[in-house]
Amino acid sequence: MSKATLAEETAQAIINYIIKNELQPGDKLPTEPVFMEKLGVGRGTLREGIKLLAARNILDIRQGAGSFVSHQRGIPDDPLGLTFIEEDDNLIVDMLDVRLLFEPHVARLAATKASPEEKAAIVAQADEVERCIAEGESYVAADARFHRLIAEASGNRVFGNLTYILNTSIAKNIEITKDSQRDSNTIRYHRKIAEAIKGGHPNDAASYMNMHLQLLREFAREKMQ
Amino acid sequence: MSKATLAEETAQAIINYIIKNELQPGDKLPTEPVFMEKLGVGRGTLREGIKLLAARNILDIRQGAGSFVSHQRGIPDDPLGLTFIEEDDNLIVDMLDVRLLFEPHVARLAATKASPEEKAAIVAQADEVERCIAEGESYVAADARFHRLIAEASGNRVFGNLTYILNTSIAKNIEITKDSQRDSNTIRYHRKIAEAIKGGHPNDAASYMNMHLQLLREFAREKMQ
Repeated sequence: MSKATLAEETAQAIINYIIKNELQPGDKLPTEPVFMEKLGVGRGTLREGIKLLAARNILDIRQGAGSFVSHQRGIPDDPLGLTFIEEDDNLIVDMLDVRLLFEPHVARLAATKASPEEKAAIVAQADEVERCIAEGESYVAADARFHRLIAEASGNRVFGNLTYILNTSIAKNIEITKDSQRDSNTIRYHRKIAEAIKGGHPNDAASYMNMHLQLLREFAREKMQ
Repeated sequence: MSKATLAEETAQAIINYIIKNELQPGDKLPTEPVFMEKLGVGRGTLREGIKLLAARNILDIRQGAGSFVSHQRGIPDDPLGLTFIEEDDNLIVDMLDVRLLFEPHVARLAATKASPEEKAAIVAQADEVERCIAEGESYVAADARFHRLIAEASGNRVFGNLTYILNTSIAKNIEITKDSQRDSNTIRYHRKIAEAIKGGHPNDAASYMNMHLQLLREFAREKMQ
């Protein structure tokens, strides 16, 4: 068997181990000697397999600390293949048009289906975004997580990762376009969306999500003039 | 400068070369000696850079023939991060619910915005899917391309790749569920969608796309019983 194939088989064995043991993002893999024993492979092969999974954003390798399940959950860099699409304000509008097609629907579903734990996490994440804004920190990551939590509460297993992808693909550009008007839209509507989901009001959740994204679109559109 | 950084810089230089020279999927890169000269790097660094881009599905390396711009246009394997989501009939329904949210809208836009060349390509691709079905070949790839062409004709630069991703992410499973009922739905509605776009009828295009996907959803739902 070729070395590449062995490494790939080991990578698949690691994935199976993560699924079987229900490891969550941030969880640590067993130490090298233990893991070599469990998978029945040598150190070199194990390291090759781990490297392949790190390249796929399934694992994080932290020098000296070990390997961990990645918070990116296997979502690759540039999932939408935007490498050859020029990032400009027009692309932000295109992206918001895509998000407008499904995020209001996703918020509607979340208001119907979210568990008490999911509702609490969504409200807490809205608070976290506000804290970032109040302290002048970048809130791109916290914002993406807020939208992802809502999508994951929808009951559709594809929406969560898809929402995350659409939120982060042009994050750099969103960073550039942030301003106080944008910040106040985010605070106001995130709070309304979170409350509507918490209270179980599907139409309110959909409507506030729509308003939130339409205002972002309006800002981006005005910047293009 | 570390070897990794040099290879990454070379990869970026190759991307810039592709963009500047407007190379299209399937186009061949210059030969090694010519490209080394153009980019001002050694053979080892060039090869490292090309390997990085092959891993990102931006280039295809064909042994003995050279390197080519990939038809995958930088869209990675498993863009949606489905590695940890179990593929089952339920996931197909979740995926179709996502597609139903935006593909009818995308077809509507295409009916308004498609150029004569884009219309011709969409009609020709509907014929190609029919040919595959008639000859008993797999039509998963041809089907994905039909939906991608429509999305690319929408004028929104994100829809094209996104549609392709949603079409191909669970292609294996779609393959399993294909049957004659599914085939006749595909032939009938692809043709109607293509004709509506060609004729410039937005509501018809949206309605037929909706019917097409709802019927796929009905098949998948019945298989789950």
